[in-house]
Amino acid sequence: MSTQVLPATSFLDAVASPADLKRLSAAELQSLAGEIREELVQALSKTGGHLASNLGIVEITLALHHVFNSPADKMLWDVGHQAYIHKMLTGRRKQFDTLRQYKGLSGFINPFESEHDPFLAGHSSTSISLALGYALARDHFGQDHKVIAVIGDGGLTGGMALEALNHLGHIQKNVIIILNDNEMSISENLGGFSQYMKRIKETFFYKDIKEKISQIEVQLDGSNLRPGIAELIEAVKKQAKQRFDTPGIVFEKLGVNYTGPVDGHDVEQVVNALERIKDRTSPQLLHLITQKGKGYAPAEADAIKYHGVSAFSLEKIEPVSPEKPKAKSYSEAFTEALIELAEIEPNMVAITPATAEGSGLVKFGKLYPERFFDVAICEQHAVTMAAGMAKAGLTPVVSIYSTFLQRALDQLVHDVAILNLPVIFGIDRGGLVEDGETHQGVFDIAFLRSIPNLTVLAPRDTEELRNMVYTAVRERKGPVAIRFPRDKAVNYAESIPFHEINFRVWEKLHDGGNLIFLAYGSMVETAKQALSILQEQGKDATIINARSTKPLDEAMLAELVSHANNTIVTLEEGCLPGGFGSAVLEWAAKFKMQNPQIQQALIATLGIPDKFVEHGSRQILLDINGLSPARVADFALKILGTR
Amino acid sequence: MSTQVLPATSFLDAVASPADLKRLSAAELQSLAGEIREELVQALSKTGGHLASNLGIVEITLALHHVFNSPADKMLWDVGHQAYIHKMLTGRRKQFDTLRQYKGLSGFINPFESEHDPFLAGHSSTSISLALGYALARDHFGQDHKVIAVIGDGGLTGGMALEALNHLGHIQKNVIIILNDNEMSISENLGGFSQYMKRIKETFFYKDIKEKISQIEVQLDGSNLRPGIAELIEAVKKQAKQRFDTPGIVFEKLGVNYTGPVDGHDVEQVVNALERIKDRTSPQLLHLITQKGKGYAPAEADAIKYHGVSAFSLEKIEPVSPEKPKAKSYSEAFTEALIELAEIEPNMVAITPATAEGSGLVKFGKLYPERFFDVAICEQHAVTMAAGMAKAGLTPVVSIYSTFLQRALDQLVHDVAILNLPVIFGIDRGGLVEDGETHQGVFDIAFLRSIPNLTVLAPRDTEELRNMVYTAVRERKGPVAIRFPRDKAVNYAESIPFHEINFRVWEKLHDGGNLIFLAYGSMVETAKQALSILQEQGKDATIINARSTKPLDEAMLAELVSHANNTIVTLEEGCLPGGFGSAVLEWAAKFKMQNPQIQQALIATLGIPDKFVEHGSRQILLDINGLSPARVADFALKILGTR
Repeated sequence: MSTQVLPATSFLDAVASPADLKRLSAAELQSLAGEIREELVQALSKTGGHLASNLGIVEITLALHHVFNSPADKMLWDVGHQAYIHKMLTGRRKQFDTLRQYKGLSGFINPFESEHDPFLAGHSSTSISLALGYALARDHFGQDHKVIAVIGDGGLTGGMALEALNHLGHIQKNVIIILNDNEMSISENLGGFSQYMKRIKETFFYKDIKEKISQIEVQLDGSNLRPGIAELIEAVKKQAKQRFDTPGIVFEKLGVNYTGPVDGHDVEQVVNALERIKDRTSPQLLHLITQKGKGYAPAEADAIKYHGVSAFSLEKIEPVSPEKPKAKSYSEAFTEALIELAEIEPNMVAITPATAEGSGLVKFGKLYPERFFDVAICEQHAVTMAAGMAKAGLTPVVSIYSTFLQRALDQLVHDVAILNLPVIFGIDRGGLVEDGETHQGVFDIAFLRSIPNLTVLAPRDTEELRNMVYTAVRERKGPVAIRFPRDKAVNYAESIPFHEINFRVWEKLHDGGNLIFLAYGSMVETAKQALSILQEQGKDATIINARSTKPLDEAMLAELVSHANNTIVTLEEGCLPGGFGSAVLEWAAKFKMQNPQIQQALIATLGIPDKFVEHGSRQILLDINGLSPARVADFALKILGTR
Repeated sequence: MSTQVLPATSFLDAVASPADLKRLSAAELQSLAGEIREELVQALSKTGGHLASNLGIVEITLALHHVFNSPADKMLWDVGHQAYIHKMLTGRRKQFDTLRQYKGLSGFINPFESEHDPFLAGHSSTSISLALGYALARDHFGQDHKVIAVIGDGGLTGGMALEALNHLGHIQKNVIIILNDNEMSISENLGGFSQYMKRIKETFFYKDIKEKISQIEVQLDGSNLRPGIAELIEAVKKQAKQRFDTPGIVFEKLGVNYTGPVDGHDVEQVVNALERIKDRTSPQLLHLITQKGKGYAPAEADAIKYHGVSAFSLEKIEPVSPEKPKAKSYSEAFTEALIELAEIEPNMVAITPATAEGSGLVKFGKLYPERFFDVAICEQHAVTMAAGMAKAGLTPVVSIYSTFLQRALDQLVHDVAILNLPVIFGIDRGGLVEDGETHQGVFDIAFLRSIPNLTVLAPRDTEELRNMVYTAVRERKGPVAIRFPRDKAVNYAESIPFHEINFRVWEKLHDGGNLIFLAYGSMVETAKQALSILQEQGKDATIINARSTKPLDEAMLAELVSHANNTIVTLEEGCLPGGFGSAVLEWAAKFKMQNPQIQQALIATLGIPDKFVEHGSRQILLDINGLSPARVADFALKILGTR
């Protein structure tokens, strides 16, 4: 790891491990918070990363490490991207210039990186379940460390977190939940629960009412009061107490002891609250109010923009190279298509589970607020609600990331596919992303294509993406999944007119002889670039846009497979086991049984091998997995050389 | 459909459709409830089915159809198996002798069966999401019907139901939730939420306190009271009101209007409560208290036993053929193995998401209460909690049904597999079951085998099941999934000593020439029986116990595939797309690329075709899907005839 030159910092330099925080006073910790913020902004201005959420959790992290003893005490950070400060304080400060780079510091907590990270977390809402697992193990082994789950208000809307809270309230094990309430998950946080907490916060800001009543009491002389007035004051006090002092009644009723709300930016208050609850034996929840982006004016003003940032200039608060206009992404093209479609399809609605920002759907929501549903981090509910809508006559489009759709597999099978309902899935982040193991969208092709009634598509470019969405919405025949990568748009142009396409039939894009690239989705562009490399060497290849994994284009397959001197190379940005290539092999085996006399083409499958893919840039990851144009061309050359 | 001779019933015979219920008075409806109970017990004594839950919901169903107008108003029954009464009242009464038989009446609600079933539901906790979807569509289209979700207290523990409740409280659409609280899901209902509701019910039974206070007031003459006494009484009243009149505060805080609790067996009370809330425009929850098995003494006494019953004798309250000892099931053999293992493996724990009864784990829980965790209907939480436990040193065994594991795919990937944690999955109901589309455990092989680090096994009999569990727990190497069918145990014997087996290597059970059955799990027994049929005709075949889908036994595959005159027939009780056969084809294609000179064997794959499988007996379903011994033998004979 590199050793970066850092600005001089008086307290921060003295912190080599969390133990050093124990010696600092609350005031010193508060000063340290300022130093950390400065360093964090500096570091992320160079590497990019999750800025706003980490600025919001500085004091909480300091207080936690001041009061608890990591790694003996286990801190489970929900969605690890709020754990940068924790990383800085646990020996990884000097590595921040490698953040989220290939072989560099992970953007999430990661037990392979530090003993202070007991678990790994990229998806939301897992921490309470994990903490309960740890607590049960601790009690089983007769250990006495603390187990702490740090979860945001957004994470708490996930059904899984609610399941865990419910179980914890029942089983009454000692788990300490730190609720970092910044009133905003990635998108605006939604739900009755969230509004309930908002009301709690109102009481927090008006808690001085109680003090005022006390002052009135002092000024009045009790003995001179008209009978009943003292009681009236008591009644008001009681009412105030009821309204303002028991904000956590929902948690309490579920069996979890509630403390708060407490100002999460006041280290002393947080430390005191932690000290008060840390030795209790029942389940505890400490409700801390924080502000995303705290302490860095641009991020405070626009925390959504600064949720996850690319490298930026500290002075101009703009991306480093503002002269170069940012290329459109697939996500943006998808949203544009939905917006244009909404105009001509009055019964089309859009649903997202808290990814309105990442998927660009915010814009849709502003134009069509009545037809836009951000259901918070609730993938299961999103999909089943869509099923209900579709059965009742609407045409819902669910925008969801590939790995988050893993949370709704059962809903897809049970609620959408069995009844063959016209729910359209726009699967974003299908394929490799820079965020690491937890976010690699490589399993969707495999699990989707085993579900009956589903049509499983991937467009070769954003124009095709538009027409796939258009056609699926117009057809309204059954569920259609359309996956696209987290990448810049290919072949993007503004507002190209829609037209229906027969997406169950493949396209021959280039006829170049017996080596045939059967390319799926993003791999069409890769195949084209690989072809250029081949052509430079005087070779050629055929390129098929195999845009549908389910159904396969059986007529075209029969033609391709029936020539023994053909070599078919399937290309997919998905896992090899059970993927698109596997579908082609299944078809060929069936065809062989029906036509044993036909000598078949050779079939090779390229895709993501059977292991988890680490973090790093998309280009690097595609290359190390054999899916860059150069690697694909190499593979083709080897085949051309031997056949 | 057959026309069954039914006992004469005065009210029931007059009900041809729900509209007829509108004319009946509350007293008449209450009489009708008695008739329905009698008929239900009679009918199920012949066919089997879900008895206890349906006995508990008779009055609620009558009241719903009395107050609302199905099918204009949409009734969404959570887990359709509580909807038998609804079926009887909506024109399907005469078909109850075909309940859950092949081509007969479905055991769940089913829109293919009646316009009164707007949706299909076999899994739990979906109804609020569906209802919200319907309500949003209704409002979009400017319609004015009612949308009613009927959910049990068990279903409400599912994270998905909590997600939906949270969203409903936020979005404030008019959905009427009928909470049928019978204090028990399939297993004992768990969770802080459930205990909270139990406390509500206590207040229900003591609500007369409020009346007593009123009586005190009347007896005291206000004008004669010492100053302050009147206020004191007011304060007590207030406190009482707070304690006893707002039992639904958790729901209210989440934005859902709460009414109740109401006695769910008193038709008049239920009707009145429904009339009170039915025209409100905000989200409503009506909390009804019922008793499972109500009105049939044996079922009241043992509602768990009568949750789902086989045909039984009304007189003896015993299975119809008590003389024949019931064969042990795979589930029971699995539980026995866990109990014996627990003795020698002190750090092994067992987890189940509310399937302790169905999986037989209740017995484990009684013997090892400290090491047994029934987390309620919380598949996601179950798996992630297991991951936390495994990381902290325990060896958790998660007992889960194949289709319910679909609810925890992301947790399996994100929390278990990435860290390669030793969580053992005992996947029950892997393969075809009599319950219909929603319960067919046919997707697990496909989605499991695409996950890195996982070992995916299926035993050929219960002895192997024992040794697989034993070996996986002893190894503690990484996640291991072991799936077994819902069927009687094959090769069962009590307490066979455990021994470690090398389950990553396949077993040749019979060497019978060039036709090779590569049989996975339950299909080994099928292959053996198919072999007998072949041998009767003077033919032979080789049988391989291909017990591991992931990893494959590559050495054995290389040997089998390398003979061009071999025909390999893969056999699996799972979906063909992406399944075990597909894994074999992937391997063969890779082998071909590496060894192009080797002429390969022909490979045929048998499994469940790419469509949803209806309900019916396992034997019928296996046969129509080509997986009965006779069908497999036929297939083999055809191959032997042509090669």
